[in-house]
Amino acid sequence: MKILVLHGPNLNLLGKREPDKYGTNTLEEINNSLKTLATELNIQIEIFQSNSESELVDKIQQAIDGFDGILINPAAYTHTSIALRDAILAVNKPCVEVHLSNIHSREEFRNKSYLAPVCVGQVSGFGDKSYLLGLQALVGYIKK
Amino acid sequence: MKILVLHGPNLNLLGKREPDKYGTNTLEEINNSLKTLATELNIQIEIFQSNSESELVDKIQQAIDGFDGILINPAAYTHTSIALRDAILAVNKPCVEVHLSNIHSREEFRNKSYLAPVCVGQVSGFGDKSYLLGLQALVGYIKK
Amino acid sequence: MKILVLHGPNLNLLGKREPDKYGTNTLEEINNSLKTLATELNIQIEIFQSNSESELVDKIQQAIDGFDGILINPAAYTHTSIALRDAILAVNKPCVEVHLSNIHSREEFRNKSYLAPVCVGQVSGFGDKSYLLGLQALVGYIKK
Amino acid sequence: MKILVLHGPNLNLLGKREPDKYGTNTLEEINNSLKTLATELNIQIEIFQSNSESELVDKIQQAIDGFDGILINPAAYTHTSIALRDAILAVNKPCVEVHLSNIHSREEFRNKSYLAPVCVGQVSGFGDKSYLLGLQALVGYIKK
Amino acid sequence: MKILVLHGPNLNLLGKREPDKYGTNTLEEINNSLKTLATELNIQIEIFQSNSESELVDKIQQAIDGFDGILINPAAYTHTSIALRDAILAVNKPCVEVHLSNIHSREEFRNKSYLAPVCVGQVSGFGDKSYLLGLQALVGYIKK
Amino acid sequence: MKILVLHGPNLNLLGKREPDKYGTNTLEEINNSLKTLATELNIQIEIFQSNSESELVDKIQQAIDGFDGILINPAAYTHTSIALRDAILAVNKPCVEVHLSNIHSREEFRNKSYLAPVCVGQVSGFGDKSYLLGLQALVGYIKK
Amino acid sequence: MKILVLHGPNLNLLGKREPDKYGTNTLEEINNSLKTLATELNIQIEIFQSNSESELVDKIQQAIDGFDGILINPAAYTHTSIALRDAILAVNKPCVEVHLSNIHSREEFRNKSYLAPVCVGQVSGFGDKSYLLGLQALVGYIKK
Amino acid sequence: MKILVLHGPNLNLLGKREPDKYGTNTLEEINNSLKTLATELNIQIEIFQSNSESELVDKIQQAIDGFDGILINPAAYTHTSIALRDAILAVNKPCVEVHLSNIHSREEFRNKSYLAPVCVGQVSGFGDKSYLLGLQALVGYIKK
Amino acid sequence: MKILVLHGPNLNLLGKREPDKYGTNTLEEINNSLKTLATELNIQIEIFQSNSESELVDKIQQAIDGFDGILINPAAYTHTSIALRDAILAVNKPCVEVHLSNIHSREEFRNKSYLAPVCVGQVSGFGDKSYLLGLQALVGYIKK
Amino acid sequence: MKILVLHGPNLNLLGKREPDKYGTNTLEEINNSLKTLATELNIQIEIFQSNSESELVDKIQQAIDGFDGILINPAAYTHTSIALRDAILAVNKPCVEVHLSNIHSREEFRNKSYLAPVCVGQVSGFGDKSYLLGLQALVGYIKK
Amino acid sequence: MKILVLHGPNLNLLGKREPDKYGTNTLEEINNSLKTLATELNIQIEIFQSNSESELVDKIQQAIDGFDGILINPAAYTHTSIALRDAILAVNKPCVEVHLSNIHSREEFRNKSYLAPVCVGQVSGFGDKSYLLGLQALVGYIKK
Amino acid sequence: MKILVLHGPNLNLLGKREPDKYGTNTLEEINNSLKTLATELNIQIEIFQSNSESELVDKIQQAIDGFDGILINPAAYTHTSIALRDAILAVNKPCVEVHLSNIHSREEFRNKSYLAPVCVGQVSGFGDKSYLLGLQALVGYIKK
Repeated sequence: MKILVLHGPNLNLLGKREPDKYGTNTLEEINNSLKTLATELNIQIEIFQSNSESELVDKIQQAIDGFDGILINPAAYTHTSIALRDAILAVNKPCVEVHLSNIHSREEFRNKSYLAPVCVGQVSGFGDKSYLLGLQALVGYIKK
Repeated sequence: MKILVLHGPNLNLLGKREPDKYGTNTLEEINNSLKTLATELNIQIEIFQSNSESELVDKIQQAIDGFDGILINPAAYTHTSIALRDAILAVNKPCVEVHLSNIHSREEFRNKSYLAPVCVGQVSGFGDKSYLLGLQALVGYIKK
Repeated sequence: MKILVLHGPNLNLLGKREPDKYGTNTLEEINNSLKTLATELNIQIEIFQSNSESELVDKIQQAIDGFDGILINPAAYTHTSIALRDAILAVNKPCVEVHLSNIHSREEFRNKSYLAPVCVGQVSGFGDKSYLLGLQALVGYIKK
Repeated sequence: MKILVLHGPNLNLLGKREPDKYGTNTLEEINNSLKTLATELNIQIEIFQSNSESELVDKIQQAIDGFDGILINPAAYTHTSIALRDAILAVNKPCVEVHLSNIHSREEFRNKSYLAPVCVGQVSGFGDKSYLLGLQALVGYIKK
Repeated sequence: MKILVLHGPNLNLLGKREPDKYGTNTLEEINNSLKTLATELNIQIEIFQSNSESELVDKIQQAIDGFDGILINPAAYTHTSIALRDAILAVNKPCVEVHLSNIHSREEFRNKSYLAPVCVGQVSGFGDKSYLLGLQALVGYIKK
Repeated sequence: MKILVLHGPNLNLLGKREPDKYGTNTLEEINNSLKTLATELNIQIEIFQSNSESELVDKIQQAIDGFDGILINPAAYTHTSIALRDAILAVNKPCVEVHLSNIHSREEFRNKSYLAPVCVGQVSGFGDKSYLLGLQALVGYIKK
Repeated sequence: MKILVLHGPNLNLLGKREPDKYGTNTLEEINNSLKTLATELNIQIEIFQSNSESELVDKIQQAIDGFDGILINPAAYTHTSIALRDAILAVNKPCVEVHLSNIHSREEFRNKSYLAPVCVGQVSGFGDKSYLLGLQALVGYIKK
Repeated sequence: MKILVLHGPNLNLLGKREPDKYGTNTLEEINNSLKTLATELNIQIEIFQSNSESELVDKIQQAIDGFDGILINPAAYTHTSIALRDAILAVNKPCVEVHLSNIHSREEFRNKSYLAPVCVGQVSGFGDKSYLLGLQALVGYIKK
Repeated sequence: MKILVLHGPNLNLLGKREPDKYGTNTLEEINNSLKTLATELNIQIEIFQSNSESELVDKIQQAIDGFDGILINPAAYTHTSIALRDAILAVNKPCVEVHLSNIHSREEFRNKSYLAPVCVGQVSGFGDKSYLLGLQALVGYIKK
Repeated sequence: MKILVLHGPNLNLLGKREPDKYGTNTLEEINNSLKTLATELNIQIEIFQSNSESELVDKIQQAIDGFDGILINPAAYTHTSIALRDAILAVNKPCVEVHLSNIHSREEFRNKSYLAPVCVGQVSGFGDKSYLLGLQALVGYIKK
Repeated sequence: MKILVLHGPNLNLLGKREPDKYGTNTLEEINNSLKTLATELNIQIEIFQSNSESELVDKIQQAIDGFDGILINPAAYTHTSIALRDAILAVNKPCVEVHLSNIHSREEFRNKSYLAPVCVGQVSGFGDKSYLLGLQALVGYIKK
Repeated sequence: MKILVLHGPNLNLLGKREPDKYGTNTLEEINNSLKTLATELNIQIEIFQSNSESELVDKIQQAIDGFDGILINPAAYTHTSIALRDAILAVNKPCVEVHLSNIHSREEFRNKSYLAPVCVGQVSGFGDKSYLLGLQALVGYIKK
């Protein structure tokens, strides 16, 4: 089994800025945790971060061949990108949406997600643990 | 560590009705999985189901003494109960909200949650796995 | 054929208060009319009134076995209870919603019904006759 | 007692098209059922169908003399015609609104009725039975 | 100078019904007052009433030749007819909208007029005097 | 009979500025036309202009004694002043609202009037003629 | 193949009025272009214009027999007629909606179409060419 | 004179939790203050707290006999319970609504009260003093 | 302790007009009651009424020196004046808002208050008693 | 004459995925049809697809020199991109918007187009034929 | 060149209250900075502060003669005064709106400005520097 | 001191297109003015234009090291980009938003800015002078 892990805009700054909101872990540390978990679960993962909506769309499209599912933290694009939604619909792979912070207790415009309705499910609010829980959930869903 | 697990209205019918929407597992099977996971995590859990808003409020209030956190699937009350929100605020314990189905891809009135903004986080869409992921997340949060 | 008849909150006061809005008949007189009609239609009915949302949910859940349909006047819960809606969905029995007064010519918040979309139909505005028309409609629907 | 029965636009196609939504009965069969019921109730009815809003307004105006009440299925005009509402107000006869389908579980623009607030009551969702229940209700109301 | 006077739906019942809302004058009496005023103002008027939106549209279209302006009480069509609005735009004649009752103190759906934005002005609330004031205003406007 | 004529804010600049929107007549010329009409109608008028909401409220209050009605062009306060509305309600004199321009074909915030619902009626769109028509209407209303 | 071509209200004035908005071609010229195109496409067309909503509904109903599709410019009724929508649904023929002007760049109330969701597609903004493109599209759709 | 004092959900925790928002007084201390004031005012009071909406409805219904008025802090049910509103309407006793905190300066969903429109008045924002002011106000109202 | 008491627009007419809505007491009588209560409470009060928003703003500003709190019935300005809100914020004195009538059961535009969120609390619905209750509440708050 | 043809995000997957919604033709096949039509119409076309909003903006800007018009299927960017709208405004070339599916019968967020108001017109709902009709319409418009 | 500088309500308290929100400079200090800048720019300024909407309207009207532009901080009236908007329109002088605080990051009702659409531009968020930048901008605009 | 100056999408066309809306200056001329001002203010600036949202995000992220503030004209992304907002929040540098045109007097969707609430302030409406004023304001803010 092979999973594509996508990080959206500004997540490359993780751990360096606003630790009170997003925790002190860097993206690299999160990626290492994901790799460790992947080994435990006996699956392969490929990780990609971009600040560009279209690069994320391109990457999702490439998941058509060789990938079994997508784990995505769309960050700011969660609330504005219909293109990412359409890409997920088009490749027709199970997708899980994760968020570091609890998007339901922030500004109102962060309560709505264009991607959630076309994903299997959503995990939000548990810091970098959201990724690990999301990966477990996705692998469990695919196996079933 | 001791966690209170709460199931909201109509969840007692789980597995008996609408298996296409909520899966074929009964509430008892979910509870057994939760107990197994609790043993693995070396924690205690107490489980309670009710169709009554006030009984759930009473139970949350009792969590003031002896409990370290709350795992709740508020079901229909997610979208209507300010009383449950106030109870969570009042006892001031970390709380995690879980949902069997993906509430973001159902009727519009199910998109809004009164409880999520006062919870640590939310897990939705993974069937009975949502409970297990939620319990892990809650325990991880408390340990941190 | 066996029908469950449910009266929601405050209907126990019927006939004693506000006769200009709800007529002078008491709930007992309505129940007697329903029983007479049931005998004529050669069906059985069981009648239950409660001010408690959860008791009504419990009762609907019990209709899974032994009942063929539900006749309900949800009163104030018409406009706030997603739990009753979910219960009707869960038991999957034909349900007819009735109202004594014309809910469409009262306050704006009474125009919306959470239950109507999951019922067979709705009868409103004919005083205690609404119950009799609703029972006829429900029996006719089940027979068909 | 004499009742005017009005059928709104497109109801002349009944039973010929979309039987899954409106049933297999033709308008003629519905009219025959209404006539049979009228005989049983010992009342007179006059039946009129039109696709034209103004012909329906004209007909309602003519009900001033010789009619005791109006039974109307305004169909599409339910949601757009203030002229029909004003006509009912002007002739000041008791009016009952009926619908074949459950208008509350269809498109949102079908949830609002301009006529319901000036009618005695509304019956919706029981197929052609809605007419019969509505006629009974209207006759019961007038007798009272 | 020649003016077309149009009365919308249900105005033919004027003076016969709901005198508390619309006054006791019949449409014939209003028309006589209008004719008297026309004579005083030394102009010609042609009067037409219809319950039909399309007959009113047809009549407005005919005003292209031989008429200098339109005085219209669109009644219920005020709030629903874009076709009447388009007709007024198409014939490009000065138009004045009048109402017997004060539409600003009635139901909210009567506050909005599709025609007013394409008319010269609006007179509402003065009973049958609204017509006379509107005719004066229209004639004054054309002369200027 | 004695009528109070009130001009709201910025009307003192009339005729000097924006003649394409409000006509070329000055406020003085409008006042002279009103005085001439008052003589014809054999009534007394008192005229007052102010840019101050409270001075207009004061003036309306003083109309309790000695005045039979109020003719008001509230200008910008039409859409923002509940104080003027309350003053009209408090003195309980018939009031007519007039506007030079057609407020229904301008910015959306000019479509709503706080005063219109508590006035006898409204005349808008006929330039300075709106005042003369409004005065006629008011006098006719009082006489009746 | 036989197509019914329908022109809605006020389109009979085409080319005579407001040429800047709707072009200088008359309806007759548009009809001639349509006939020429029909001959080229080797199909039959029948053309009908009416200012009456109900006559348009009647005509659509008659398309049940003998017609393979409908090309309609509903004009003002686009935004107000649920009766036309229901008629199209009832006859169950492929329908294409056309507009001379670009309805998306005009008043907001012209942005919404009751008919578009039940049509195959929509062509708007190309003047009389919209009809020719719409006819081509409809014929192409039916052939497929 | 006898007054029913009702405390809604979560108020039993008062003084124990969130003293910065609700003050440090317990519900028992508030009740003692109310009893002292009742003695001063020479009236009787009966006090009841519940987290259950239906128990509060039942209690209000029992106020029909032997009580002259109701003092209620509906807490979270203020914003969601139409059943409490209907109960107050049904028993037809003067009712005063009180709130410890200023509900107008909190979350938007706390600004709307279903009960206020059917109460004599509302007192909010003065901590436990709100109860004492409310009781005084109610007694003053009843005496008048 | 010294309190500034402010009466907003139209309150000078109190007791003279609309006694069914506002009671029969004049503003002078209310002021006398306030003075009597002030003597009992051993505090000083200064009373000021104005129909002018800016005079009220000026007065609030002057409360910076020598006053300990403000009791205000903003009347119509409650719903429209951000200037009064800003003045209260600027002088930073505890303020209590009072209303004679129950603003929650009147027109919808009277439900919103710009001042309430920056006041200590609100008392509404008890006629002239609202002032006395408000003064008590304010004094109690300051003492605490 | 030279036309720029632009395909928005995810259209590169056309024909490979979701054939029930978008047809079985690949983007290459659509491009071939467009080239064939271009040859017939004796015009030149240049085709460009991108998942990137900014690359599409860049391309539109390059159309300033050497191009006579733009044919665009903005796909998901239809509903979110003001940048594309501004680019079209800036280059000031006639633009036609096309859609494969009928955007009016899909999710509500797909009903609104930021680009349509600044385009000549829109063609939607005819599968790959929408492109061909759009190109014809655009060429017709430019020639005129 | 001569510029009118207007300060709206409560700005006379500047520097004395809420220094964290509005800075520690008094209005006098701001005025001195403005005078210094005026001298540098070789222009004349006249400064006026008022808490009264009508005094501000009066002052703007007087700018017709002798002034070349207006610099205004309308404070609270920004969001409520159509009268100030109309005054600016009437005198037809270039106007610049300034704000000390960033009105886009405060309460939602402060996001909308009635004046901004009729001004040349807006400067907000730079404390007392907003005035200096605004004056520069205005002078630059007039010179151009 | 070093400032990053960012120009959003389509600004590269400045001065070449739509001079009536955006002035006749090219982006190069604006940049030259900015450089001149920078020299006067004795600061360094780096200028960057892009049509790509992600390139602008990347650039803002690079401002973490070596820059003291950001001056940005986000153009179309003002109203759609949460990613830019998050980038500004993440780098935590003072940011000033500028606009050439007055965004408050254009289409409604241009009134809302996602960036303004996280900026120090906003300057809009003064053509290319907006940049110079914004730079002054930003430098002044940083120095303070």
